[in-house]
Amino acid sequence: MSGTATDVMKRYRNGEIWDFENEMPTLTRDVILGLDGGTTSTLCICIPLMPFSDDLPDPLPVLATAVAGCSNHNSVGETAARETLEQVMAEALSKSGSNRSSVRAVCLAVSGVNHPTDQERILSWLRHMFPSHVKLFVENDAVAALASGTLGKLHGCVLIAGTGTIAYGFTEDGREARAAGAGPVLGDWGSGYGIAAQALTAVVKAHDGRGPQTMLTSDILRTIGLSSPDELIGWTYEDPSWARIAALAPVVVSCAEASDPVANKILQYSVQDLAESVKAVVRRLNLCGQDGNDCFALVMVGGVLAANKRWDIGKEVVSCISKDYPGAYPIRPKVEPAMGAALLAWNYFKKQSENGLKC
Amino acid sequence: MSGTATDVMKRYRNGEIWDFENEMPTLTRDVILGLDGGTTSTLCICIPLMPFSDDLPDPLPVLATAVAGCSNHNSVGETAARETLEQVMAEALSKSGSNRSSVRAVCLAVSGVNHPTDQERILSWLRHMFPSHVKLFVENDAVAALASGTLGKLHGCVLIAGTGTIAYGFTEDGREARAAGAGPVLGDWGSGYGIAAQALTAVVKAHDGRGPQTMLTSDILRTIGLSSPDELIGWTYEDPSWARIAALAPVVVSCAEASDPVANKILQYSVQDLAESVKAVVRRLNLCGQDGNDCFALVMVGGVLAANKRWDIGKEVVSCISKDYPGAYPIRPKVEPAMGAALLAWNYFKKQSENGLKC
Repeated sequence: MSGTATDVMKRYRNGEIWDFENEMPTLTRDVILGLDGGTTSTLCICIPLMPFSDDLPDPLPVLATAVAGCSNHNSVGETAARETLEQVMAEALSKSGSNRSSVRAVCLAVSGVNHPTDQERILSWLRHMFPSHVKLFVENDAVAALASGTLGKLHGCVLIAGTGTIAYGFTEDGREARAAGAGPVLGDWGSGYGIAAQALTAVVKAHDGRGPQTMLTSDILRTIGLSSPDELIGWTYEDPSWARIAALAPVVVSCAEASDPVANKILQYSVQDLAESVKAVVRRLNLCGQDGNDCFALVMVGGVLAANKRWDIGKEVVSCISKDYPGAYPIRPKVEPAMGAALLAWNYFKKQSENGLKC
Repeated sequence: MSGTATDVMKRYRNGEIWDFENEMPTLTRDVILGLDGGTTSTLCICIPLMPFSDDLPDPLPVLATAVAGCSNHNSVGETAARETLEQVMAEALSKSGSNRSSVRAVCLAVSGVNHPTDQERILSWLRHMFPSHVKLFVENDAVAALASGTLGKLHGCVLIAGTGTIAYGFTEDGREARAAGAGPVLGDWGSGYGIAAQALTAVVKAHDGRGPQTMLTSDILRTIGLSSPDELIGWTYEDPSWARIAALAPVVVSCAEASDPVANKILQYSVQDLAESVKAVVRRLNLCGQDGNDCFALVMVGGVLAANKRWDIGKEVVSCISKDYPGAYPIRPKVEPAMGAALLAWNYFKKQSENGLKC
């Protein structure tokens, strides 16, 4: 049978999303599902259950992946989020030749999970989707991003900076802390959105006489196809999407690389802001130990931190953090956050199994 | 006949909005209409045509006023804006015992008018509403606010700071300039929204370890009925209204009055930001003359600038501007911006009549 997204969606509409389970030979292989659900897309990855005793293989084995749209319940509502998640899991299982009875554990890491109540609600409907023996875990997507860098170990701090930004950390004994992640109204100025909004502000200020002239004016107007800064107000408010504004961040980087002082100042401010989020988490969790020099993983995720530019925001952030905490050990993950979620599920399942054996 | 808003609305729905003109004795008195259309409400004021030769009477004569909802076409769409404006004018005329043939001039000052194209579009449908002899003028609402302080004279600078902020100035020879007024995404940090958003950010930062503890935490949470800063993210994004956030600005003022350093810093930043908008307009228009000491009207409008607090933002803004431009002469208008619009209409009509006589 076919497992394309369209097929799965058609089956979902007909209430047949799991029908493939009756149409194929059942494989006895145990599998794990990891999901990374963001505001733009959702990725589900299906991996085999790896032996607990061995080191993790390199590369990590992948049976199937599937992609769908937004699954942030704050953004699209609970029903649509649930449909998307069920579809993408069915597609990944179908592609891997498995079914729900083969699943040992699922970790769903999704943005918009900020409270235990969010976790409980999502867990309760995941529970209805799977046989009762399946172990289910729900986390904020930042937790999966951390695990994608540490290969499933929840220790250290992750800094995500894409359209938005958040810093999230864990100690080895399970304490956790976060900083930022509160969106543009509440001061996430180091994010892609924050960088771009400051650049648009600089263009308006240069135009009305409040600020210095800057290359950002010509470069931003050309990028979005406007002829005058007067048109920026209309452009800004015609569409409330944060991602649309954040998409201008690379223009700020290129202007800073061309030595524009205004663009340069915005990026330096962004670096301070991002570093301060990490430092707040490190301080609260004492990740640096008593003498301040303990090593800890600093996982760097998101377009703003990508090391593909001469003006390297991520490198500057690490340098700023290292001045206070020389033990910060930067990691740029080689696998997707969805794999981080799968490794988390595997780790949780392993711990529960080991604890079960001890009882 | 009755002239209540409900009656007028019912008549509008039935296409009978102007029917009252056939049902009442026609008065021969000439009148002027001034309208101030904002994002929260629209006020229409009907005044008698005053003789051109005399000084303005004190108090200014008012025949009738009428109030309606939002008439910003960017916010409610063109059809709804037009309906609201037509309703509110019909109500004011009906209450004053006049009809459209008595009207000599109309000045419609409305937020969201940023370009000549906005003016042209609104003028063209106003044109269809009135007999051809009626003089029609369309302005940004900031222009009426200036005129409310200068009693119709377009010279000087107005600073509006309520939910949003804008500075708008005119020279005696008709050049104009504006600064700010670009909304919260584009850096209007001195506005009520800007002050409140910075305060919410300070609460989040105090909570996640990025900033110092502040009285704002307890005072803001109590005001909006939340028990923890964790709930602020949900509260902030559940309703995108700028006015809802801006309503927290008085809490920041009261915390600053109680000597909270974080609140104090936010207000000082707001003062700098508001003063900078005025200074940019003064510089560009050279309102202060060659030696920098010329007098010019500085009209102060909006809740943020109201002089009813010990921490007086308006007074601090004037003090900051006066350091650079000692000729700034602050005026807090005693009449509504709608009266400013009516006086503008009267002035325009007077000038056109005088020019007509010369021809």
